[in-house]
Amino acid sequence: MLGNFMYCNPTKLYFGEDSLAGLNEELPKYGQNVQLVYGGGSIKKNGIYDKVMEILKANGKNVFEDAGVMPNPTVHKLYEGCKIAREAKADLILAVGGGSVCDYAKAVSVSAYCTEDPWEKYYLQMKDVDNEIIPVGCVLTMVGTGSEMNGGAVITNHEQKLKIGHVFDERVYPKFSILNPVYTYTLPRYQMVAGIYDIMNHITEQYFSGEDDNTSDYLMEGLLRSLIHSSRIAVKNPTDYEARSNIMWIATWALNTLVAKGKSTDWMVHMLGQAVAAHTDATHGMTLAAVSMAYYRFVCPFGLEKFKRFAMNVWDVNPEGKSDEQVAVEGLQKMEAYMEDLGLTMHLKELGVTEEMLPGIVESTLVMDGGYKVPDKDEIREILKNSL
Amino acid sequence: MLGNFMYCNPTKLYFGEDSLAGLNEELPKYGQNVQLVYGGGSIKKNGIYDKVMEILKANGKNVFEDAGVMPNPTVHKLYEGCKIAREAKADLILAVGGGSVCDYAKAVSVSAYCTEDPWEKYYLQMKDVDNEIIPVGCVLTMVGTGSEMNGGAVITNHEQKLKIGHVFDERVYPKFSILNPVYTYTLPRYQMVAGIYDIMNHITEQYFSGEDDNTSDYLMEGLLRSLIHSSRIAVKNPTDYEARSNIMWIATWALNTLVAKGKSTDWMVHMLGQAVAAHTDATHGMTLAAVSMAYYRFVCPFGLEKFKRFAMNVWDVNPEGKSDEQVAVEGLQKMEAYMEDLGLTMHLKELGVTEEMLPGIVESTLVMDGGYKVPDKDEIREILKNSL
Repeated sequence: MLGNFMYCNPTKLYFGEDSLAGLNEELPKYGQNVQLVYGGGSIKKNGIYDKVMEILKANGKNVFEDAGVMPNPTVHKLYEGCKIAREAKADLILAVGGGSVCDYAKAVSVSAYCTEDPWEKYYLQMKDVDNEIIPVGCVLTMVGTGSEMNGGAVITNHEQKLKIGHVFDERVYPKFSILNPVYTYTLPRYQMVAGIYDIMNHITEQYFSGEDDNTSDYLMEGLLRSLIHSSRIAVKNPTDYEARSNIMWIATWALNTLVAKGKSTDWMVHMLGQAVAAHTDATHGMTLAAVSMAYYRFVCPFGLEKFKRFAMNVWDVNPEGKSDEQVAVEGLQKMEAYMEDLGLTMHLKELGVTEEMLPGIVESTLVMDGGYKVPDKDEIREILKNSL
Repeated sequence: MLGNFMYCNPTKLYFGEDSLAGLNEELPKYGQNVQLVYGGGSIKKNGIYDKVMEILKANGKNVFEDAGVMPNPTVHKLYEGCKIAREAKADLILAVGGGSVCDYAKAVSVSAYCTEDPWEKYYLQMKDVDNEIIPVGCVLTMVGTGSEMNGGAVITNHEQKLKIGHVFDERVYPKFSILNPVYTYTLPRYQMVAGIYDIMNHITEQYFSGEDDNTSDYLMEGLLRSLIHSSRIAVKNPTDYEARSNIMWIATWALNTLVAKGKSTDWMVHMLGQAVAAHTDATHGMTLAAVSMAYYRFVCPFGLEKFKRFAMNVWDVNPEGKSDEQVAVEGLQKMEAYMEDLGLTMHLKELGVTEEMLPGIVESTLVMDGGYKVPDKDEIREILKNSL
């Protein structure tokens, strides 16, 4: 039910092939010192780095580089970024990359002037931000996380075997994001399909909750249908602008708070996947894919009506002459076939997980209570075992 | 196709039964002088006026009343509102009412300090705003127009027989809007269903354009399905919170620029309806309803694929064994039956239009070129004749 809530999403988006020009609109709004955050250097190979630097220079900015953000940004890297931000007196943090780079930029933006240990305060204790926040802007080169238009920032602590996401309030949302579908063309297939599944799972995590009649569910069915359609085109032809642009746009709207309105939201697939990543450092979307079918088959009987609706409205399962269970199961089979076609990782073993690692992963799994069934430790172990 | 565009919607929404409390968060951000804009006084009968005044007083505001905003706000009323705003030195214009009241508030906000004639500058010449803009906040009591989260402001000039909407940029969007579904319970049935059809038509005006594969179309199909479902409940039980809250939320997202992304958009039903209103002063949603079926039957052959998709994805028409034309026509029949069930005005005669008035209405109809067929004057006359 759409109960009491506040909606506010102030991020300004520049979308399309010419969207990098939006930087010229935005940069004059900030001071001279820009902390340029990026990952392993692929932006240097594909030319995006040069284009961004040219615009930064043309706008008279002092650039402070903060490279090497890893796919699962670590707490050590976060401390390093905070130091750069303070020393540079950064007026703007410009993230050029995918969700990890955007997440990291937001984590630095709230942590640089945090007087306590930010991992302790913002991740273990999940406190609200009460210190100075450095503005963040994003140039997106990968899609999936929705980080370009939300307050999410996931950080991994390998020593503690924890990967935790804090969803910060709208003061921490990127002030602007540049979304150019063409920048996603050169992404390796593995990362592309992992990102597509991350999007799908963001939607299903929110969809599979509640038993009410809610407009958010109808919006999510639309997003899912469009995603399934466009992703099938994109895997065949990665430079299909229309497909890639739809996927980019869906990613943003899948996780910018809109479709969560009125939903308790589940997020257990993410909790399982993040626990796997804390033990393997595997690609985020693939950790989700590997545990999804086992999780959804576990939870399906507890949310049968919704899984039936999912089968009919998203996967066009014809319900005639079938029981609710049969319809629901057929929907999950269609989803599984789609995932296999996409080339997703369907088993944890492919990510290096062994049976011996399961107890540790179970311990690292945070339990959320918004879905159709709150799993206990035995059930989590069983789901992970069925995912091997 | 999702080409180059900018998306930015800064309006903060407070939604739900307790949302009026959001005023206490917002009022301290503005100066002391508040211009309180409302309509014919229904807010005094249902108690909303007293509740709003209490909060304004508790926040130490000087209230300058600007009542009597009519369903189709006139250019004369606009001049009056500008005078009140200047004399009051209004720091905030607070609109309490439906779309007309919100539209009017935005028109005053850009016109109060306009040194030229605002009707001439912002409506006939459609110029950009280059003068001071007074911030606007809204407390919504009727749903339909989406005015609570966009830059639209329709003004009527009876002398010139013109009703024109200017869509202003995001500086003119309401800074905040209070959306309490309970406030819509007491609305007379006629206004309720007119508002519901206004929402539906906002979506179809955008949906029936383009032949590409666009995520916006999928989102609109979701909004339409949810609207059809909830409106059928609301007409039977106007105090069903779930249905009314979904309708309120759909209204906002139907016309806050999101689903227009990548669409050329049609808007000819609105142009026809606004021409009818300029000659009759009839209720907006009913003018749209009365011309819709004739218009869509006219344009259907030019956008057959989309009308077929509409029939299947929105109205669940089974296409098996049918031609594309048959599927499309069946979809429109289902839409017509739904409209009749809702109790909408299906003929212009019911709004006081006579055959003799048609040439004048044809002259008042602005022609847009984003739909599947740009109608010429003869076609417009034919559509209006078929709507009688």
